Amino acid sequence: MTERVGEFVPTPRLLLGPGPSMVHPRVLRAMGAPLLGHLDPEFLRLMNEIQQMLRRVFRTANRFTIALSGTGSAGMEAALVNLVEPGDAVIVGVNGVFGSRMASIVERCGGKPVRVEASWGRIVEANAIKSALARSGPVKAVAVVHAETSTGVHQPLEEIGALCRQHDALFIVDAVTSLGGLPLEVDRWGIDACYSGTQKCLSCPPGLAPLTLSERALAAIRNRKAPCQSWYLDVSLIADYWAEAKRAYHHTAPISMLYALREALRLIEEEGLEARFARHRLHSAALMAGLGALGLLPFAEEGHRLPSLNSVTLPAQVEDAAVRAELLQEFGIEIGGGLGALQGKLWRIGLMGESSAREHVLSLLSALEVLFLRHKWISRPGIALEAASRIYAGDGRKE
Amino acid sequence: MTERVGEFVPTPRLLLGPGPSMVHPRVLRAMGAPLLGHLDPEFLRLMNEIQQMLRRVFRTANRFTIALSGTGSAGMEAALVNLVEPGDAVIVGVNGVFGSRMASIVERCGGKPVRVEASWGRIVEANAIKSALARSGPVKAVAVVHAETSTGVHQPLEEIGALCRQHDALFIVDAVTSLGGLPLEVDRWGIDACYSGTQKCLSCPPGLAPLTLSERALAAIRNRKAPCQSWYLDVSLIADYWAEAKRAYHHTAPISMLYALREALRLIEEEGLEARFARHRLHSAALMAGLGALGLLPFAEEGHRLPSLNSVTLPAQVEDAAVRAELLQEFGIEIGGGLGALQGKLWRIGLMGESSAREHVLSLLSALEVLFLRHKWISRPGIALEAASRIYAGDGRKE
Repeated sequence: MTERVGEFVPTPRLLLGPGPSMVHPRVLRAMGAPLLGHLDPEFLRLMNEIQQMLRRVFRTANRFTIALSGTGSAGMEAALVNLVEPGDAVIVGVNGVFGSRMASIVERCGGKPVRVEASWGRIVEANAIKSALARSGPVKAVAVVHAETSTGVHQPLEEIGALCRQHDALFIVDAVTSLGGLPLEVDRWGIDACYSGTQKCLSCPPGLAPLTLSERALAAIRNRKAPCQSWYLDVSLIADYWAEAKRAYHHTAPISMLYALREALRLIEEEGLEARFARHRLHSAALMAGLGALGLLPFAEEGHRLPSLNSVTLPAQVEDAAVRAELLQEFGIEIGGGLGALQGKLWRIGLMGESSAREHVLSLLSALEVLFLRHKWISRPGIALEAASRIYAGDGRKE
Repeated sequence: MTERVGEFVPTPRLLLGPGPSMVHPRVLRAMGAPLLGHLDPEFLRLMNEIQQMLRRVFRTANRFTIALSGTGSAGMEAALVNLVEPGDAVIVGVNGVFGSRMASIVERCGGKPVRVEASWGRIVEANAIKSALARSGPVKAVAVVHAETSTGVHQPLEEIGALCRQHDALFIVDAVTSLGGLPLEVDRWGIDACYSGTQKCLSCPPGLAPLTLSERALAAIRNRKAPCQSWYLDVSLIADYWAEAKRAYHHTAPISMLYALREALRLIEEEGLEARFARHRLHSAALMAGLGALGLLPFAEEGHRLPSLNSVTLPAQVEDAAVRAELLQEFGIEIGGGLGALQGKLWRIGLMGESSAREHVLSLLSALEVLFLRHKWISRPGIALEAASRIYAGDGRKE
């Protein structure tokens, strides 16, 4: 009962799974600063700065752009419970775990999800959304996942945004695995509600959910018939907590996490979004070339592959759990397996934020070569690194 | 638009408000450790250790004892949305902000709150709960606040726990400002659902909500007619994420925050709960003696005053906002004002966890003496420190 728990010293890990991603030492250090009160004028200034920087990374002028006090999943729930009222029809693109989760939350709001399904690994076609909009009666919203973390699919959004405007439906986008890693244009693409998590391409520890809402979305919330079913995630209350002129007490924000997010956003501004996106593309290309040489071929539809979450199909002989355990135990490298029906069939390799770096790609490919040679799935050392090198040579830039 | 946000260096603060409390350097340092994946075997071990240590501080053998990925308010919402189904009657003790909030969340669950009101500053009498139980038809639960952060009232629980058993009602307790600072006996007092926040007497940054549920509570959740309205806070899903045998992916836990909580709980075990409670009582007594010498008299009912949250009434001449601003700007000390109807009439001084220390009590009393002399509300320096010293001298212990 009273056995003492000792000091915690985590083994160093290279985090190349579906999140969390590696965190920059400056971000880790930021969390060590002493706390301010959450209504201290200095802390209110920090909240403002975070809002400003989040607007830049979301590419939006939305006044309501904040970091929710919960993880990415809380962001999904907040977007849906505030916008969906009992009886509302919501078209949901379902081509992976996170689309399914959206549909399930719509149900918990008393809404009616209209599932537009696509095979896991393929995008949801704008045409399919178009037909669903034509078929259904009035639709409150269309919800899709920009970056399906379960499959590695990169969903195009612009055309769906235009359809939403034509049908006066709100456009809800899950940007958990895209924000800060690939182009996302909240305003230009007509997105009304967009949420993310901090532990992916923003390279901050998990615990906060960036969320932005358009004026259309806020109007829908103001016009609700009944209050939102969640008090904790009620945007009408949270807005007053984050609004510069009010700062009405709602809950106590996770202060140290906000210190971390501020520093992570500063790092993004120093790098620049375009350079950051190019970096994500480059290292993904090098990784996929190396994996291809090992016989691990892309799972997601061609032309729609995420640079932040690289999904590859396992050849029949490769034992998923055994190899991932060896990677973790011998090399300290974490990668992700498949979820749901894809368990044992897929690897999901995250190159997000700080994890998207040449040395990490090379470390993983080298470790996989060692293991694949040991298991006799390949016969020549160097093939994966060679393939990756060709990409890096072709690029010619210095990382 | 592209103005750069500079490095963040918070001004040192002495946090004596209603939370966050001061955080030990070991806890701050714990957050700086590199991240593990949230399904890494090492991280799963850490989750187990946190569960063990939380059981000890809650004084419970409840299997379901975890830290929710949200702040204390998320803990309140989780307890209620999982246990309250549409149509359920729930007796709620309302004698401050947090009791009112509970009643409002019961409504958002479709439940029927039966408010048992008491004046702010007074406890909710067990007899009043008894009458409400006798008056009402079947009642699903009784919910009360152990430590009303808005008033400083310390609510007795044991008798209400016994009433709940007699009426087969679940007993829900808000322990946000008590857990780790004053005696709380979840099992002995028959509490079925108890939640807290990390940023109060546990002296950890805000961001997590410890939550424990009895087998009776879990059975009520299993027997729900419809799924919980929240996906993020659905205990049936969260239980599988924290259960050692399953570890089914639900969301990504706030890893760095859990590092912090583990270290904060270790500090509590090193001190011992009884010693910790005695420390909270001692410094509260010294503070209240000093405040009394300044004319600031206790607000909460005698015999039911919290040592963790000391509420005092302001004499008419003392200007609330001006003095609190001076305290913050000149002395770097944060204390809390009154909420709601008590705004401008009350101060709330938190002595929770690391904030409950002799040097902090002395610093605050000294600063208040300076300001009260300046405003000519007192005429002799030293009166508050002298009164506090008498308590410390009488105690005879060394802190």
